Formats: sequence, structure tokens, C-alpha cells
Amino acid sequence: MLMVNTPTKYFISSGSAEGFSHLNAFDNALLEAKVGNTNLVRMSSIVPPKCECVNNIELPYGALVPVAYASKTSEKPGEIITSAIAVAIPKDDTKPGVIMEHSATEGKEATEETVKNMVKEAMKVRNEPIKEIKVISATHKVEKIGATFACCVLWY
Amino acid sequence: MLMVNTPTKYFISSGSAEGFSHLNAFDNALLEAKVGNTNLVRMSSIVPPKCECVNNIELPYGALVPVAYASKTSEKPGEIITSAIAVAIPKDDTKPGVIMEHSATEGKEATEETVKNMVKEAMKVRNEPIKEIKVISATHKVEKIGATFACCVLWY
Amino acid sequence: MLMVNTPTKYFISSGSAEGFSHLNAFDNALLEAKVGNTNLVRMSSIVPPKCECVNNIELPYGALVPVAYASKTSEKPGEIITSAIAVAIPKDDTKPGVIMEHSATEGKEATEETVKNMVKEAMKVRNEPIKEIKVISATHKVEKIGATFACCVLWY
Repeated sequence: MLMVNTPTKYFISSGSAEGFSHLNAFDNALLEAKVGNTNLVRMSSIVPPKCECVNNIELPYGALVPVAYASKTSEKPGEIITSAIAVAIPKDDTKPGVIMEHSATEGKEATEETVKNMVKEAMKVRNEPIKEIKVISATHKVEKIGATFACCVLWY
Repeated sequence: MLMVNTPTKYFISSGSAEGFSHLNAFDNALLEAKVGNTNLVRMSSIVPPKCECVNNIELPYGALVPVAYASKTSEKPGEIITSAIAVAIPKDDTKPGVIMEHSATEGKEATEETVKNMVKEAMKVRNEPIKEIKVISATHKVEKIGATFACCVLWY
Repeated sequence: MLMVNTPTKYFISSGSAEGFSHLNAFDNALLEAKVGNTNLVRMSSIVPPKCECVNNIELPYGALVPVAYASKTSEKPGEIITSAIAVAIPKDDTKPGVIMEHSATEGKEATEETVKNMVKEAMKVRNEPIKEIKVISATHKVEKIGATFACCVLWY
């Protein structure tokens, strides 16, 4: 991989699904989130300065896609699982934003609240006033084997 | 990393080994699989359309290599550990293939059967008729600390 | 990601911190290690031949940064946690070096000793006489939620 550049666009997405196995449920949740036919490369969790928020991008099949994500799978029927991410963008557009990820056996509201507090804290330790916070999550009640997934994709 | 392209070649490989620690056993299994002197970057698990299947490529030492893999380490003497991956290529060569990974404390046959069913399922949810499935695995009976590894490497 | 090149520089770093959550503690430890505002892409663990050891590089905010690392978080007050990495460079500068990572609930000395033995072993199986070994670690006594982190960053 030629390491040169820094991503210039990002979008957030989420999905949930049942599946034949934990990995199939995860794969199905990725498809739901419209990132399922790419090669997600997981990374820690910064939005570069001036990175533009866009709607779902048509990613090429099999492209290598840098992503921060939360995911959770479960095979306990009836269990509630939620994955959420939060993106905080600083007021100072020369500084980086932060992405935080959180999964839990809780509902949408509690999980989003937690991840929002996490990202606020991350900006606080950086002494960066926040311009805006975006949160996205997916919640699922497990039937047989379920997965939830929430992501921030970086792109060009 | 300059994110631009999509890999054009792939190969599958596997290996197993004992080692001084879990990580050394894993490292030794990578060497067995002929990917041990590279920097594997793990990704989720798509074969780009028209990606060509090749034999083991001579990868440059320390190159950043995108890979989907299954691995398992164990320090229970006598335990059987197996790692397997399956690659399904669609009939429609404008569509992506899927890679599935599975590790278990089972033998070669059972683990390969499971991962093959996983990849069939992944193609079924995509409504893509399958042209072919490739499976590879490594099985090991643990002496002190053992590792198994099976991978699909994407390359250029 | 355009996969072409092999990194030409590396540096080692470490950090430890408390945090609001496990992920925030990890994020704070990354900031301590001066890699906190980048997108770390984890990889297995080779120093390319002739890769130059440099001091901490000013990494661009949000850049995709290939890294091998050890990390550990804990929420047991009073627990000692340590993360360490060791880098072994071979005498033969046409051959790759190896990075090993280890985390433990032990102190600096024991954890560094273990990771040093791991990397010696990795060079021994490669039949490569060692020119030098570099070790770095971070140790932390947990107050509420703590994290330790040690890394080898590859760069260009």
C-alpha cells in the first residue's frame, strides 16, 4: 500500500441482520449498511481536517476502504444488541475530528447516549470546541444469530 | 495510504506451526504459508470482479499486504485446531466474489464443510450463482503452543 | 488503497492513560504516544529491509498510518498493566526485521523481557543473526479505567 494521502470525504452508515453464522450475520449487516461488497480496513478513528461529509458513496466492488466501526453479534434469541458510532467535528477546521465506537446489549437510546459522551470526552481532552456531533446506530433483536454494525467510512 | 485502486490478483495459502508464544506460533504459521515476512493488513472479505487467481506470489519483504484470514492458536496439548477459508467466485464476472473465514477445534473435513456452507450462503444472499469455490485449510495437533492459519491475499 | 510500496522509515513509541471509557483510555494513551490524531491501521509485524529508524515523525492529522502495536485496558483499580513491543533488526540488511508485541498484568521489566525473548525467537527461526533489538513499553497502575500502548509505526 502506497502510504501517502489522507482521506478527503467521509460518510456514516449502519445496518443489522440475521445470518447463517456470526460472520454471515456480520456480512449481511454490512450489506444493509451499503458497504458489504468492499474490503473494509479497520482503523483508529480520526476524521481529517476539512474532510467533507457526503451521502453514501458508490464504493467500487472489492475496493480497500478505510473505516472505523462498531459491531456486535449474538446468538442469544431475544437479546437486544446495538452498535453505534459518533463523529465529532471541531469548530477549528484545521484540527481533526474524532470517531468513537460503542456496542452494547442495550437499546438505541442508551447506546447512542454513551457513544456521544465518549466522543465529547475525546474532544474535551483535545481542548477542541465542538462544531457538531453526528451519531448513527443499528439495533436488533436476535432471532437465531444476529449482528449490528455502525461505521464511519473515509474515502477520496 | 493513498486509497485508489482495487486489487487485481489473489492467491490462497495456509500453514500451521508450534512456537515459543502464541504470537511466535502465529508468526511461524505465516512463514509456513509463505506470507510471514510481510505486513498483513486484515480486511473484510471480497474478491474484486475479474480478480485473477495466481499461485503464491513472491511478496516484497515488509510490503503492506491486504488479506482475509482465519487463525487459531492454542496451548492445550493434544487439541486439534483448524483454520479454513473459502472463496466463492460468481458466474457473473462483473460481480464480486466473497471470502469466508472459519476456525474451530475440529478437523479439516468439518471445518472446510462449515466454511464452504458459509460462503455458499453469502453468495445466496447476493443472488449470485457460483462459478467455483476454492477452499484451503491448515490443521494442527497442539504440542505446547500451536497455531493454524488460512488466508486469501489480494495483490497487484 | 493503492498497494504499491513498502515503508522506508519507522519509529517506536508508547503511552499510558486513564480515560472515561476503555476506548477513551486507549485514545488518550495514543495521544500520549504522539500517534493519537492519526488513523492507525494495524498490521503484522515486519520492518522492511533498510528501513530507517527515526525519531517521532509529525504525522498528518487523520493520515492512514500502518502500525504494529500492543495495548491493554483494564478497569480493575490498582492493577498494573504493561504493553511492550520489541523490534529486531538483522545483521544482513537485505533481510526484514521483526516486530513483536506483548501485553501483560506485569511490570515493565518482566513484560520487556518476554517481548525481547519473543523477538529473539522470531529471528532464530529465520536464521538471521541480530544486529540490534529495540524495546519500548508503557506501564500503568489503574485508577478507574486505564490503558497502555506501545507501537512501531512504519512511514515514508
